[in-house]
Amino acid sequence: MSTTTERAPLNGVDTPTLFATLDAVKGQPDIAKFQFRAKNRWVKGTHNQSSIHGFYGAGQEMEHQHETVIDADHPAVLVGADNGPTPVEYVLAALAACLTSGLANIAAARGIELTEVESTVEGDINLLGLLGLSDETRNGYEQIRVSFKIAGDAPPEKLQQLVERSRDRSAVFDVLTNSVPVAIDVTVA
Amino acid sequence: MSTTTERAPLNGVDTPTLFATLDAVKGQPDIAKFQFRAKNRWVKGTHNQSSIHGFYGAGQEMEHQHETVIDADHPAVLVGADNGPTPVEYVLAALAACLTSGLANIAAARGIELTEVESTVEGDINLLGLLGLSDETRNGYEQIRVSFKIAGDAPPEKLQQLVERSRDRSAVFDVLTNSVPVAIDVTVA
Repeated sequence: MSTTTERAPLNGVDTPTLFATLDAVKGQPDIAKFQFRAKNRWVKGTHNQSSIHGFYGAGQEMEHQHETVIDADHPAVLVGADNGPTPVEYVLAALAACLTSGLANIAAARGIELTEVESTVEGDINLLGLLGLSDETRNGYEQIRVSFKIAGDAPPEKLQQLVERSRDRSAVFDVLTNSVPVAIDVTVA
Repeated sequence: MSTTTERAPLNGVDTPTLFATLDAVKGQPDIAKFQFRAKNRWVKGTHNQSSIHGFYGAGQEMEHQHETVIDADHPAVLVGADNGPTPVEYVLAALAACLTSGLANIAAARGIELTEVESTVEGDINLLGLLGLSDETRNGYEQIRVSFKIAGDAPPEKLQQLVERSRDRSAVFDVLTNSVPVAIDVTVA
């Protein structure tokens, strides 16, 4: 069975290429093995910069068209210089972005035209853990809530199903709601 | 017992204010309850923009000095227009940033001067899950590896201990290695 359909490009998604890519991966599953990367450099205090550029995928080393550099810091209330968002805020943005990218692809695959997709993400965190003041309080978010507002040319239940399907296939939702093994090593220069 | 010490500012960390903040939170633990937020707006295809500005903390609504807007997209090999990093790359950057910010604070608190902190993060992901082509493959990272390179005025084992302590109190490490409840709701406009 092929996933190739007669779907035209929709929502800015090149749907024919998306289906062709799915078919290519089915025929050669090894090309689905990717490795993403980030580099980070400490600047001063809680301020540091990450850069994102190269990755591995489809059997070869690849690069984004442009390197992206992002600053992270703590705000003044947390004794930082506020040179950028906190790391935990980037996690919330990543979650919204992942759900939204997936949603646009899924809508295109289903022939649903989207006119608006907005979301807000809130994460509750009690800093007693992170600050080392309580062993009963976890360091990270206690709960995250995402609220989507969607408009498109489909009945409400079809639009809601887009979010459900996107959640069910979201990489960031997965790593936040299931756990990931994280290994850390240190070299002293 | 007070955590206040005679430590001077170090590594760009205002250590006296950091200790004063810890003392303030000890005296009034409710001010440690924070809520971070991100907003996201779909642009086109897999391209979307997140903005980070306001948050709640220390008993009041607060704002970063500047709003930060970040673009996320899929690269061409994943049928996107490559207008920015993928959401999962932001997660790697957030992890490195969180560990590095914590490390700088901990070093200052311990009186260790840092001269260099760099890290690289790699995340292995098999897209068969995310693409809906395999139910046995998870959607997100199978493994994440962080490699730190550190230099400072302390013996190697003391520098390595900074990373260990930072990991033990890292919010992003926590949410990736433990799970977080994530609730999603949808409003159809």
